Amino acid sequence: MKKFLLRCLHCGREYCPSEIEYTCPHCGDRLGTLEVIYDRGYLKKAVKRERFEKFSPKGIWQFEALLPVSENGWKPPLLVGNTPLYKSRKLSEKYGVGELFIKDDGRNPTASFKDRASAVAVARAVEKGYDTLFCASTGNAASSLSGLCAASGLKSYIFVPASAPVAKLTQLQVYGARVIPIDGSYDEAFDISMKVGFENNWYCRNSAINPYLLEGKKTGALEIAVQMNWALPDFVFVSVGDGTVLSSFHKGFLDLKEAGLIDEIPIIVGVQAEGADAIIRAYEKGEPFEPEDIEAFSVADSISVGKPRDFLKACVYTKRNKGLFVRVSDEDILNSIIELARATGVFAEPAGATAFAGFKKLHSQGRLSSSSRIVIVVTGNGLKDLKAPQKMLKPLKKVPANLDKVREAIGSDC
Amino acid sequence: MKKFLLRCLHCGREYCPSEIEYTCPHCGDRLGTLEVIYDRGYLKKAVKRERFEKFSPKGIWQFEALLPVSENGWKPPLLVGNTPLYKSRKLSEKYGVGELFIKDDGRNPTASFKDRASAVAVARAVEKGYDTLFCASTGNAASSLSGLCAASGLKSYIFVPASAPVAKLTQLQVYGARVIPIDGSYDEAFDISMKVGFENNWYCRNSAINPYLLEGKKTGALEIAVQMNWALPDFVFVSVGDGTVLSSFHKGFLDLKEAGLIDEIPIIVGVQAEGADAIIRAYEKGEPFEPEDIEAFSVADSISVGKPRDFLKACVYTKRNKGLFVRVSDEDILNSIIELARATGVFAEPAGATAFAGFKKLHSQGRLSSSSRIVIVVTGNGLKDLKAPQKMLKPLKKVPANLDKVREAIGSDC
Repeated sequence: MKKFLLRCLHCGREYCPSEIEYTCPHCGDRLGTLEVIYDRGYLKKAVKRERFEKFSPKGIWQFEALLPVSENGWKPPLLVGNTPLYKSRKLSEKYGVGELFIKDDGRNPTASFKDRASAVAVARAVEKGYDTLFCASTGNAASSLSGLCAASGLKSYIFVPASAPVAKLTQLQVYGARVIPIDGSYDEAFDISMKVGFENNWYCRNSAINPYLLEGKKTGALEIAVQMNWALPDFVFVSVGDGTVLSSFHKGFLDLKEAGLIDEIPIIVGVQAEGADAIIRAYEKGEPFEPEDIEAFSVADSISVGKPRDFLKACVYTKRNKGLFVRVSDEDILNSIIELARATGVFAEPAGATAFAGFKKLHSQGRLSSSSRIVIVVTGNGLKDLKAPQKMLKPLKKVPANLDKVREAIGSDC
Repeated sequence: MKKFLLRCLHCGREYCPSEIEYTCPHCGDRLGTLEVIYDRGYLKKAVKRERFEKFSPKGIWQFEALLPVSENGWKPPLLVGNTPLYKSRKLSEKYGVGELFIKDDGRNPTASFKDRASAVAVARAVEKGYDTLFCASTGNAASSLSGLCAASGLKSYIFVPASAPVAKLTQLQVYGARVIPIDGSYDEAFDISMKVGFENNWYCRNSAINPYLLEGKKTGALEIAVQMNWALPDFVFVSVGDGTVLSSFHKGFLDLKEAGLIDEIPIIVGVQAEGADAIIRAYEKGEPFEPEDIEAFSVADSISVGKPRDFLKACVYTKRNKGLFVRVSDEDILNSIIELARATGVFAEPAGATAFAGFKKLHSQGRLSSSSRIVIVVTGNGLKDLKAPQKMLKPLKKVPANLDKVREAIGSDC
């Protein structure tokens, strides 16, 4: 019995995983995105609730049976996933909802959700005999790939626009990634990466191109189900840039449903920044989904995407599962970083706090009830971008090194 | 049966925990550092190997029986500890030692080892009825305290020299800490914090003053013992600034020995930067241990301490347990960040990589054998200080957005 096959989301053609690795050759890279489809008989037999722990020393690999990798095969040695799910009574009371949970994925090895995808990419690459991986990214995908490759003794090539901030490139260079700063736009860096990567026979970790990445990311949904004792939330809020993270939550819950482990899929709410809402625009225009490229700008750089490469899955899954979309402003995002940190102790990067901003937006529209159970996914650690929240903070005033002056300053603050 | 008492390390006087909270009134803040001493009968009865898991959803609170807090009392809601211990075959082979493990404590909620101490401080403060805590720090202790306080609904006051870098203060302000920037030195900020904190009846989270902090930190040693299946390493390498982290490893293993869970204590190696070696100097001069204040300078800002406040425990424990000290240069530290990240995927802040630099130093002196089993403690995440490793990285060269030029650039790199 085959564990899984690949199916084109656009034309429906099916492929053997040994036959093809990335996108459907009939539909091309933009539309021919592939889904990993598990054999239903296999799922029902191999996947049981009692196999999973709320907190496993294996991290995401406890879900191996639900992942497109050989079981007991080689795995990268960093502990990925297994991130805490915190219940915040302070926030559920403040907003008058039933329960509110924060999934803190900034606790991954390179401090973002993307490690879930990179771990599966690296496992798959090694299984297929590759010793080098590549991607085009300036952000979390790149640092994640370079960290996982370093730990695994693999080489990584990262194609970035030369304008990327030095701080973002530092993490990559520290991990020993070969960074290629292209004197051009992100899109040019992406296109060059695809040509050079394939002609060198490197494994591709570009979202939307590689269907295995989404499978890694879906472990976020699987962990939520296990950590909530299978009593699923009503709403899951996730920020959306390229579209893969959003799609991965749909796919994770869909796979659990296919396996007979859950009955219903939560309402998954994709949250985009107002200035980078290409996927929402495509969704609102309706089928056939086809985004217009926009000039994106948002303070949440990880989701500031003008030409989303995984729009199709994001739209198709949202429609199929009756998901929702919501836009938030940059100001909402920045305020959310601070409110979330002060209420829960979880310091999120802007894209990480975007999901919380989306929850507040939906709440302000009266679309949540006092019994709603909410999960908010924080996709990256705030240490990745300290400049963003600085915009919202009052500058500090020096106090002379004198006891009375300090007492006075504190008195006025209380 | 009382669970524990407090004993002055200098004069030996014993106190009830209800009687006194911080230092021995007879010996003063500088010398009168207190140890938490557990009742031996209690330890033998309450503490069993089989109670502990390699990976517990409770984090450090699985060791509650070995901590100076009421069992089943209120605990701060962030998941602290439970950080991975990675075995690196690449490094043990390179250096020809038996086994080499990296304990990645950058995976804590605010990305440093200090969360272990702050968690216990916050639990103790709440138990004693406090709603506000304070400390003097610009670094990991401050961000840790402010994060844990935010999560716990407590207030925090942080006293810092006004010259502290903005990036370091951002994390504190995001968490909602009241930051008091004193126009003076760190020592002035410390002294003012002690006066103002106590006159306002806030709970004190200044290392060396508060004996409960070390108890939180000792959970690092307890986790190592459990994660290594009680087959302890021969050497544990830890970086040293004020001295509390070093002391905490001694204390953790000592308590396990007292409880009858281990027979021998590993050789604990305290590693200081050459430019901030006040504790090593005091140790080398011999008893009575009394450091001379020095002008400290090291790239590893978290351990760049000229007036160490917890020197006594560090020296007494090191002598009692036959520990070692070693100095490393700033260049060693910076190189170690990069070597460690590339070999293991663990990106450490400078003080975090200092322990690895110390291992290499001892190795180069021929003091480790091919059977030595090594643990290196990484105390903080590299994202906390991106500027330090930048000093060691080659500036990147732009490549024109042209396929042939990119191919050429990659060819010359291979």
